[in-house]
Amino acid sequence: MPVISLTTDFGLADPYAGIMKGVIASICPAARVIDLTHLIDPQDVHGAAYVLSDARPYFPEDTVHVCVVDPGVGSGRRIVALRTAAGVFLAPDNGVLSLVLEDPAPVEVFRVENPDIFLHPVSRTFHGRDVFAPAAAYLASGMPLGRLGAPVAAHSLVRLDFGPHAGFDKDGGLTGAIIAVDRFGNLVSNITRAHLQEAFGIREDEDVSVCVQVGDQVISGIVGSYQSVRQGTPLAIIGSTGRLEISVNGGNAGRYFVAGRGDPVTLRRDGTAGPGAA
Amino acid sequence: MPVISLTTDFGLADPYAGIMKGVIASICPAARVIDLTHLIDPQDVHGAAYVLSDARPYFPEDTVHVCVVDPGVGSGRRIVALRTAAGVFLAPDNGVLSLVLEDPAPVEVFRVENPDIFLHPVSRTFHGRDVFAPAAAYLASGMPLGRLGAPVAAHSLVRLDFGPHAGFDKDGGLTGAIIAVDRFGNLVSNITRAHLQEAFGIREDEDVSVCVQVGDQVISGIVGSYQSVRQGTPLAIIGSTGRLEISVNGGNAGRYFVAGRGDPVTLRRDGTAGPGAA
Amino acid sequence: MPVISLTTDFGLADPYAGIMKGVIASICPAARVIDLTHLIDPQDVHGAAYVLSDARPYFPEDTVHVCVVDPGVGSGRRIVALRTAAGVFLAPDNGVLSLVLEDPAPVEVFRVENPDIFLHPVSRTFHGRDVFAPAAAYLASGMPLGRLGAPVAAHSLVRLDFGPHAGFDKDGGLTGAIIAVDRFGNLVSNITRAHLQEAFGIREDEDVSVCVQVGDQVISGIVGSYQSVRQGTPLAIIGSTGRLEISVNGGNAGRYFVAGRGDPVTLRRDGTAGPGAA
Repeated sequence: MPVISLTTDFGLADPYAGIMKGVIASICPAARVIDLTHLIDPQDVHGAAYVLSDARPYFPEDTVHVCVVDPGVGSGRRIVALRTAAGVFLAPDNGVLSLVLEDPAPVEVFRVENPDIFLHPVSRTFHGRDVFAPAAAYLASGMPLGRLGAPVAAHSLVRLDFGPHAGFDKDGGLTGAIIAVDRFGNLVSNITRAHLQEAFGIREDEDVSVCVQVGDQVISGIVGSYQSVRQGTPLAIIGSTGRLEISVNGGNAGRYFVAGRGDPVTLRRDGTAGPGAA
Repeated sequence: MPVISLTTDFGLADPYAGIMKGVIASICPAARVIDLTHLIDPQDVHGAAYVLSDARPYFPEDTVHVCVVDPGVGSGRRIVALRTAAGVFLAPDNGVLSLVLEDPAPVEVFRVENPDIFLHPVSRTFHGRDVFAPAAAYLASGMPLGRLGAPVAAHSLVRLDFGPHAGFDKDGGLTGAIIAVDRFGNLVSNITRAHLQEAFGIREDEDVSVCVQVGDQVISGIVGSYQSVRQGTPLAIIGSTGRLEISVNGGNAGRYFVAGRGDPVTLRRDGTAGPGAA
Repeated sequence: MPVISLTTDFGLADPYAGIMKGVIASICPAARVIDLTHLIDPQDVHGAAYVLSDARPYFPEDTVHVCVVDPGVGSGRRIVALRTAAGVFLAPDNGVLSLVLEDPAPVEVFRVENPDIFLHPVSRTFHGRDVFAPAAAYLASGMPLGRLGAPVAAHSLVRLDFGPHAGFDKDGGLTGAIIAVDRFGNLVSNITRAHLQEAFGIREDEDVSVCVQVGDQVISGIVGSYQSVRQGTPLAIIGSTGRLEISVNGGNAGRYFVAGRGDPVTLRRDGTAGPGAA
């Protein structure tokens, strides 16, 4: 039973995602469609890139991941399909696959341009329905990627800057940024377990003696569970995607810190917090 | 694999839609259920009618489209099932099928009244669960429509007024209204490609020399893609349902124009915009 | 075709629920996953308990109902799986199954602790992905519950207080509380048909001569349908879950009464409304 995942900024009030599923059911009735989210902020290519990156390890390897966050719809921007070890990805060539492209090199990359697979007339504003959905359904039905169009060189694909990258400060600290705030108010940073290991020799998800600074407040240590601190108290923890997250046990860190996407997060060895620390 | 689509005003926080799917899975395990939307404004029969109308061409022809936007639940209002060339529709007879009824005449129309197919006790407030879901599941299982109840004359079905209809002004212009605002702020009008062709001889989705007035502002021309204008600039375009839409490239037309449902949209040949034009 | 239902507080913007479905599709491709809701208020165990309780009668008996409303994730709280006549339930042992446990005693209860069924590494913050989803998928595939871990005594499971319980006042009235407000503004109380029968001898969903007090306003009688009163008028009705609900015909009772969860609802025989009655 083939699987197709959908990631869009269509929202849930309009029937756009449902219409894509109608097209898919018309072409590949056996396909199972799984919504990753339709609530990407409108045209937020970066946010969609994180969703695809975080979700792909948890899907069957032959899943067709479709992403329609496509500010350039109707322009000359390419639509591409690529196969990697993690699955097949179908998206506009606008950088939304930047993080997927950090995996080992894709096996195949093709432009999606064969009008035989489109719904006609192809609208200027809803390629999700007329291009992405039928292409995904045919791929889920077993059509080879090469039928979509001409081969594309992987190095020619648009890659976005996801900075400020987490990196070392000259005083031995590590600085990153908040890349997402989830429904619970958890502040997800771009500082990964690998960064922590490199900077501080941290190997396990155990309590770690570093100071984590968000805004003008400092959290002491990275803990192993929310319950390591009292109810209502902030904490730093390695989240489910392997990234450092700032949370409040039983609370909402986004409101607690009045912090959001793009705000810096700085780590220092315990006792070396900067002058702005609370 | 039979397909059932759902369109309701139940929202997504309450388990009402999920419970309908439980009922369907209990009766017709093979059915694939596709959500069109559960975020129709409460009791907004007009909004639901547009969703059904826009979605139906993109579904398999034997899809059972279920619409539960039903302010009259518990009253004497009829529930009807009808088969057209576009699919089977199951809905309260409150006008929500008005646009579907503009298709070639339905082949079959029946009242949904056979208590053998209902869940008992039938609640007074949730026919989605006790009437619509089991009826849809039995239809998806292959039950003939005639088992639902007595035949109904198609001309007796409730039809709603969807005006103000797009129509000609005495000075040669064309006036319509905004019928929906989507998540991107696109203002969808009731002016169709057919209206434009009749009024101005417009045949293709190419740049067209008309002035489009929304509020006291005028947009010059209908363009073929969002990128035909600069970022942040308003435009008029034929949208994916064949209706004229007002958008802002990379922006939100609803906020730009402070316009919404019911507001007028007027088109004139270029150079003939009214005195209110900006 | 096995069915898995999902009830979480993950929201719909983040891909958490979709990732659970990816895990399920990887392990048990045949499973059909039905969302009950992902919009439980964050960490609202009581709200989730009502959803499970209201939905379970409408699903196939071998459905695996998964609930991830789990403020204790990462702590020592148990995860349990239990089979009752109504289905299989998989949830943290935090009281969310309290209402399900009012059914006839569960046939089997086991702790979910067998690492062979988890995804590794098991994160500290997302057991939905690493524990609940694979456990549900293996159960849907036919794995016996006993493979999950050690048996658990049903009486040891956490049970929450769902009070104030509906109960008799010393003056012969019946007092309950609002337990939920749905999208239409209907105020759902914890007063059931059984309470009404015991207090007032009410047997049928017919118009009943009691006064229903919400805040300082009194509604006269329990009606059989919304249309029993004029548009815009408040009413009391037995809702689809068998609980007394306060509604406004064509309106929103939550706004009309400025009432919400936890507010009291008092019933008295007609003519005996308290001094606060309007």
